[in-house]
Amino acid sequence: MLKVGLLGAGRIAGVHATAITSNPGSTLAAVSDFYPENAQKLADQYGSTARTTEEIIADDSIDAVLVATSTDTHSDLIEAATAAGKAVLCEKPVDLSLERARACREAAAKTGKPVMIGFNRRFDPNFSAMQAALTAGEIGKPELLSITSFDPAPPPVAYIKVSGGLFRDMMIHDFDMANFMMGEAPVSITATGSSIVDAEIGQAGDVDTAVVTMTYADGRICVIKNSRRAVYGYDQRVELLGSDGLLQAQNMLENTVVKSTTAGVTGAKPTYFFLERYMPSYAAEWGAFVDAVNGGGALPVTLDDGITALAMAEAATRSAQTGQPVRLEDV
Amino acid sequence: MLKVGLLGAGRIAGVHATAITSNPGSTLAAVSDFYPENAQKLADQYGSTARTTEEIIADDSIDAVLVATSTDTHSDLIEAATAAGKAVLCEKPVDLSLERARACREAAAKTGKPVMIGFNRRFDPNFSAMQAALTAGEIGKPELLSITSFDPAPPPVAYIKVSGGLFRDMMIHDFDMANFMMGEAPVSITATGSSIVDAEIGQAGDVDTAVVTMTYADGRICVIKNSRRAVYGYDQRVELLGSDGLLQAQNMLENTVVKSTTAGVTGAKPTYFFLERYMPSYAAEWGAFVDAVNGGGALPVTLDDGITALAMAEAATRSAQTGQPVRLEDV
Amino acid sequence: MLKVGLLGAGRIAGVHATAITSNPGSTLAAVSDFYPENAQKLADQYGSTARTTEEIIADDSIDAVLVATSTDTHSDLIEAATAAGKAVLCEKPVDLSLERARACREAAAKTGKPVMIGFNRRFDPNFSAMQAALTAGEIGKPELLSITSFDPAPPPVAYIKVSGGLFRDMMIHDFDMANFMMGEAPVSITATGSSIVDAEIGQAGDVDTAVVTMTYADGRICVIKNSRRAVYGYDQRVELLGSDGLLQAQNMLENTVVKSTTAGVTGAKPTYFFLERYMPSYAAEWGAFVDAVNGGGALPVTLDDGITALAMAEAATRSAQTGQPVRLEDV
Amino acid sequence: MLKVGLLGAGRIAGVHATAITSNPGSTLAAVSDFYPENAQKLADQYGSTARTTEEIIADDSIDAVLVATSTDTHSDLIEAATAAGKAVLCEKPVDLSLERARACREAAAKTGKPVMIGFNRRFDPNFSAMQAALTAGEIGKPELLSITSFDPAPPPVAYIKVSGGLFRDMMIHDFDMANFMMGEAPVSITATGSSIVDAEIGQAGDVDTAVVTMTYADGRICVIKNSRRAVYGYDQRVELLGSDGLLQAQNMLENTVVKSTTAGVTGAKPTYFFLERYMPSYAAEWGAFVDAVNGGGALPVTLDDGITALAMAEAATRSAQTGQPVRLEDV
Repeated sequence: MLKVGLLGAGRIAGVHATAITSNPGSTLAAVSDFYPENAQKLADQYGSTARTTEEIIADDSIDAVLVATSTDTHSDLIEAATAAGKAVLCEKPVDLSLERARACREAAAKTGKPVMIGFNRRFDPNFSAMQAALTAGEIGKPELLSITSFDPAPPPVAYIKVSGGLFRDMMIHDFDMANFMMGEAPVSITATGSSIVDAEIGQAGDVDTAVVTMTYADGRICVIKNSRRAVYGYDQRVELLGSDGLLQAQNMLENTVVKSTTAGVTGAKPTYFFLERYMPSYAAEWGAFVDAVNGGGALPVTLDDGITALAMAEAATRSAQTGQPVRLEDV
Repeated sequence: MLKVGLLGAGRIAGVHATAITSNPGSTLAAVSDFYPENAQKLADQYGSTARTTEEIIADDSIDAVLVATSTDTHSDLIEAATAAGKAVLCEKPVDLSLERARACREAAAKTGKPVMIGFNRRFDPNFSAMQAALTAGEIGKPELLSITSFDPAPPPVAYIKVSGGLFRDMMIHDFDMANFMMGEAPVSITATGSSIVDAEIGQAGDVDTAVVTMTYADGRICVIKNSRRAVYGYDQRVELLGSDGLLQAQNMLENTVVKSTTAGVTGAKPTYFFLERYMPSYAAEWGAFVDAVNGGGALPVTLDDGITALAMAEAATRSAQTGQPVRLEDV
Repeated sequence: MLKVGLLGAGRIAGVHATAITSNPGSTLAAVSDFYPENAQKLADQYGSTARTTEEIIADDSIDAVLVATSTDTHSDLIEAATAAGKAVLCEKPVDLSLERARACREAAAKTGKPVMIGFNRRFDPNFSAMQAALTAGEIGKPELLSITSFDPAPPPVAYIKVSGGLFRDMMIHDFDMANFMMGEAPVSITATGSSIVDAEIGQAGDVDTAVVTMTYADGRICVIKNSRRAVYGYDQRVELLGSDGLLQAQNMLENTVVKSTTAGVTGAKPTYFFLERYMPSYAAEWGAFVDAVNGGGALPVTLDDGITALAMAEAATRSAQTGQPVRLEDV
Repeated sequence: MLKVGLLGAGRIAGVHATAITSNPGSTLAAVSDFYPENAQKLADQYGSTARTTEEIIADDSIDAVLVATSTDTHSDLIEAATAAGKAVLCEKPVDLSLERARACREAAAKTGKPVMIGFNRRFDPNFSAMQAALTAGEIGKPELLSITSFDPAPPPVAYIKVSGGLFRDMMIHDFDMANFMMGEAPVSITATGSSIVDAEIGQAGDVDTAVVTMTYADGRICVIKNSRRAVYGYDQRVELLGSDGLLQAQNMLENTVVKSTTAGVTGAKPTYFFLERYMPSYAAEWGAFVDAVNGGGALPVTLDDGITALAMAEAATRSAQTGQPVRLEDV
């Protein structure tokens, strides 16, 4: 039974609290938050205890921490928790700085403690079933991967300005998805971007619509499409053409109701945003972490995976600025 | 904050425990079970306390009980809990005996405490969205309702023998669904049954495949199809033709992955059985109960609804035996 | 090369003219019509010759006739054409009178000439693929057949009055479809009808909404749903549950365009009515007739099939009037 | 009534013959072919006359010619037929040489006779409905267009060598589709290609898998994906994200039958190749030509459209070779 400290008591922490409580292999030993009253409230609801982050990390009876705090604290908390002998599941991204993330990796590696990065999309029932079918050889050799990833609405421009840009903030998920499906990182990345959704985003130095083409050593190709705005909901699709067929992971819909009238045949929209769409993935992600830590097996997503995705975002950012292909090894 | 006693600690009780814990308006105060060690285990996992059923009912600090015990205890526990001043959410069916269920209704009514019957399918996101669209007038006046409800595999014949028969054991859900969609009970019921799936089921005096046609006072018609075996999974579909269009609630699938090969285009099967399919409905059902009890509003499903569905099952059983239509008022 | 006389030059005859011309095994030798100028116009368009019906039947160089005239002439033309030694493909129904149709069968049988009835839905690419999969054993033993067949809009009440009623005029197609899928006629038929779409249809002594349940000697069950009005288009679906799975033939849509907006995900409506939906089936039907006649093989649909469907319509009409099941052998 | 000469009597000419005959505004006056016996056979089937190409072009009673001969004869026949005062519908491509095509345009323009290029995909019911919805403003302002176009199997390498390469031979259709949807040509084209399907194709100097990204003056982006091999059939999809929603034109399937078994839910494959998929588009294309010529209206696709697509193929070919973006104005 894994005793878990939950660092952070915000909205996503609530999702994790349900996952920790419902999993028969883990219990929610303690919760902390920058605002102690939030920690207290969450602890009450789930029959747990509110403590400070420092107390949780110092408590030897706690086996693992789940880091669900703001991005700028991730590297520090990973380092502190692993140094204290704990297993860590940290929300993505590792860091906005590739350099800081690489330093964190070095520090954590010295402790020998397992660190998993929360690329929860790998645990989405659709994407994981697709990857399993691919691995089972059901479409033969992969050749051409396409990832469509549109958010329902752009964030405020104020957020855009500190986000690190579309490639680091949004497409980083898709870079990890490409690595998950292709089984390795690409050789070369070419990015095209535009601020056609909102000119203010362009004035802030970012793009809101982008297409990235990536090539692999053996000739495979991947294309990723991003838009900050799909008014019909969160559009999250992956398709992969192989020598023996095509695999597609399609959108989850809000419900299965279909209405046929003189206006056409209308079904529900895709689930609105990441909390709705990826809710089941958080429980599966937590289950995989618990199984790996309790069973001593390998983690399904590592700190390395987080750093590779960050490097790809860096390469895409440069390519969009220069119009030239960028080799990943040059980042 | 509703303090809840959970009576029963079996598989479905675990589902309810997650719903009670995750709902910010309720807490899991205590758990009981025929086997105390099961109650203890569930209590530990969810940060609650194991007690006896009697203690829970006698504890005035507990506001409500969720009855998730075996069917033969339902009427007694509803009567005891309401007599002790508690609100009750009881798993379906009320009882296998229409007479006993009617007596329970009388006893509970005297206490004035709210009793909700767990027809959880009304809270399925698909069926509830369909009913909302219907109520909003999106397909005009309803005319012809069709319910398809197939189980993945028949239960053991030993179970069939004590089940009360297909109409009381399985189609009772569909009778309630018809009432939910049509907004009233039918006038007349005609049933046709067959034991084509398994001859042993026929030898046990039951059917495994059945079609029921029901007519309403204003000329509307409803047809329900049941089979004990659909090897591809749990087939749960409802469609309703109205003057301005058609509404369909289709199956939930295990995932959205589609594979195209020389053999065709293959998607996932429907979710396997009721726990997979109706998992989200249990949380929504609980939320509706908490809102009604905390807010003093009307319950969305009542003890009356449970008894009407039981009477329809009785009518269908008689019709299948005689080949004649049976009027609901004659049951 | 089959030389063909086309009797009738109306809308459906134009469809047949394209089928006859495009089929490399047949040529359009002559066209006749009650209105000679219509025959002339069609002949000009397809590079053929306009003649009288009598001339076509008397012309020994013509091998086959396609009867696309009004229903009341069918029996007479089948008798005359077979007596003149021609193969016949006659549009459905054989006749509105079961007695007259049986007499026609007797007369035609004496000539030994092949007569095919145009139940074109058997040649619809969807229904024929479904039947082929069934015959190939892909879902094991059939158990429960469901046919949904809704017209887009009711015909004028004046037509209803002379139509023979919904069961003979509309559901007759579905009776033949049931025979096509089940491979034999049912034992017993129970019908329920209502005039909920249009009270005037009820006043004219007919129904506009009906559900028919049919049972088979071995316990199989079939349910047919008809409505005279589905405002979203022509709804033509068949599904069959078998011991190893489910087969469904779904609607053809006007196109494959899907639009996702804040209002939902909307696709095209089903093709509007029989000409749009069943256009491909006419060419396939003609091809099957040409192949059978040229090759000396058995016809895929016979005069007998037309008469069986008519008898089922008779039984359903009686059942809807009495509320009692009717055995087909009693008709 | 348009009197039409059909030049060519091969497989696609048969499709056109049915379109010409079935259209009430045109008749098939004559057919020619390099092999006179083929012309004779087609003429017999459709009640027409076999003649030489020269005779047809010289016959003043013939109003229009449909050019369905081999590509290397297109420019010559367009010039000859327009010089003889005829309207022309010519199969794509105009020519493999951009220079020759431009010369042909100049010659034809001097005659003032209408020349339409057979980009039949514009008349596909799906793509034309999608473009109509776009033009009607149903998804607001277009932002990101994606075209997926996979052939079922690569042609022989011998064909590849003389084809002009994937961009001119295959993607040219998609370039025209992009122009049809976007309403203008792009500014810049970046192409990535690979010979991952068949190394021999790479040795022949061509690619079999390619992704092309195109940018427009106002910031819109288009991405086209091509593969020479999709073993499940002809994959022809277009989707366009706009400010108010998404439009998708999905694949046509062989039929609508769906089979649910323990192995999953399987539907039919996409129609196998262009003849199956685009059959309805040929009739619609012909109808548009007849309407424009008979009514004196503007042609929906012009010789200019053919030349623009050819120039885009040229730009993509260069980009794939250099790895650099190519501006269309530089071709």
